Amino acid sequence: MWSDYPTLKDELNETLQKMEEVIRLKNKPVEQAIKETIHAGGKLLRPAYQLLFSQFGSEQDREKAIALAASIEMLHTATLIHDDIVDEADIRRGQLNLRGRFGNTVAVYAGDYLFVCCFKLLSDYTSSLKSLQENSRSMEKILDGELGQMDDRYNYHLSVAEYLENISGKTAELFQLSCSVGAYESGMSERFARKAGLIGLSIGMAFQIVDDVLDYTKKTEDIGKPVLEDMRQGVYSLPLIYALQTDKKAELIAYLDKRLELTNDEAQAVRRIVRKTKGVEKAKKLAEDYTKKALKEIHKLPDTPFDTRQTLLSLTTLILNRED
Amino acid sequence: MWSDYPTLKDELNETLQKMEEVIRLKNKPVEQAIKETIHAGGKLLRPAYQLLFSQFGSEQDREKAIALAASIEMLHTATLIHDDIVDEADIRRGQLNLRGRFGNTVAVYAGDYLFVCCFKLLSDYTSSLKSLQENSRSMEKILDGELGQMDDRYNYHLSVAEYLENISGKTAELFQLSCSVGAYESGMSERFARKAGLIGLSIGMAFQIVDDVLDYTKKTEDIGKPVLEDMRQGVYSLPLIYALQTDKKAELIAYLDKRLELTNDEAQAVRRIVRKTKGVEKAKKLAEDYTKKALKEIHKLPDTPFDTRQTLLSLTTLILNRED
Repeated sequence: MWSDYPTLKDELNETLQKMEEVIRLKNKPVEQAIKETIHAGGKLLRPAYQLLFSQFGSEQDREKAIALAASIEMLHTATLIHDDIVDEADIRRGQLNLRGRFGNTVAVYAGDYLFVCCFKLLSDYTSSLKSLQENSRSMEKILDGELGQMDDRYNYHLSVAEYLENISGKTAELFQLSCSVGAYESGMSERFARKAGLIGLSIGMAFQIVDDVLDYTKKTEDIGKPVLEDMRQGVYSLPLIYALQTDKKAELIAYLDKRLELTNDEAQAVRRIVRKTKGVEKAKKLAEDYTKKALKEIHKLPDTPFDTRQTLLSLTTLILNRED
Repeated sequence: MWSDYPTLKDELNETLQKMEEVIRLKNKPVEQAIKETIHAGGKLLRPAYQLLFSQFGSEQDREKAIALAASIEMLHTATLIHDDIVDEADIRRGQLNLRGRFGNTVAVYAGDYLFVCCFKLLSDYTSSLKSLQENSRSMEKILDGELGQMDDRYNYHLSVAEYLENISGKTAELFQLSCSVGAYESGMSERFARKAGLIGLSIGMAFQIVDDVLDYTKKTEDIGKPVLEDMRQGVYSLPLIYALQTDKKAELIAYLDKRLELTNDEAQAVRRIVRKTKGVEKAKKLAEDYTKKALKEIHKLPDTPFDTRQTLLSLTTLILNRED
């Protein structure tokens, strides 16, 4: 995916370097493992959006923009590491994760450490308290969402609205933060930063729905641990929620009721029903709606010397159409 | 212990209220459990010191001082909740803890949530970025210390210096932060805040050593899970380190080598050897030294309208002489 936004390649590489530079621990094996987590990492979407929105302001401070992009990715990585404890997952993106290698103990403190690094970078590079306040509020919302979601486990009646509220807290909030902090810290007004944040919110919603759709469409025979685990642990995403609203509901519940006993084959059967009842199609449609909303607002953004609008348009379209 | 510093009683009650007020979650059972954790909580020593050092400045803003005291106690509580995951402990202060009641899942996010609340309060009430930077640096040190300590497990050769470095990161750092932030945020100079921090550091060292001594002197037949767990998991504290430096070393190692298999009776035997070889006495002496150092510096502090120096002197003496 990286290769698809070449204009950001240098900045994103420097963002990774900045993260490497900040992570300094006496415990070298753990330091090394955290660095590997960051490199094995994801698509760097959040820093990418933050960097793009920082191109609108009049304060083009490259060092600051990169440090703040690093801070948002560290925050994201911290939540991933702690999610792995919660999900009892030992594998992430095909590799043994921190928890798998060192156990819960190290994973707890390593996640905490990355949280702190995020706040450290922010407080070192921002010139006002505003972004720190916004960062804290976002994190508060994310954690409120995660803890709230636990109340929704094994809820066969979860509504689309409730699902959307959950992913808004879990995923979209951090996209919103990236875009608004990027804009604000480059010298744009609070009003513009809020607008940037709303674009980020729509993108984040589309991103998470597409992620959830891919769980049901990937052409692999092995359903993959995360999806199976979600079904077992009662975390139901949009395609399944739509399917549960059809006449296949009873059949689906018979499977889901097995909870932790659900086998790989049974989960495959659930996937087939979800596809047959158009759960996937409906979810895709909603992701498209969010993407369109974002694209419409991006079109209205002002010019920059960096052709930022065009990059935002293609990156956002890419998120919708990706296949992994 | 509370009743021993009556001059702070109102402020500390308001600090607890402030914490209650900040904690707002959709998941009500977890919200309730976090609040209970705070109330079942400790001696509120960190906020007490923070409040006392805030009496030196010219900016006597009660609301701010209490909010900042709440923020430091929330940080402390966050570390306790995450420590319980690391220690696989289900009990704290005689009661089922958050992990015991809801499992690792909730404990991870609940601790994260309290971290965030701490930063939120700080960024809402401070007027400069300085305290946030200091806070991040302290947390960084604490986590570096915790992760570093894992490398020292089952190390029978742990030196006194290494132990002191560990507890300096683990415990004393937060006392240092409380005192320096309290002073700085009340309008005192950075120089005075640094001095306040050094007093806090000595107090924190004494506090932790006394804690470790009490593990060996409490007159209970049941050694208590935490102490037993520490021995089993290879976390050796000062009295034991001193005992390992005597001719009883081989005998002690024979016990400690049992690691996770160590029984309650065997742990009692270790305690007896530690007492007999004067490990307890020597550790107590070192705690006294740190306390004296702190008292000497407290004596030099300026007058306040609140008789702050006297309260600092008695509270600090109390910490040394406490029996639980």
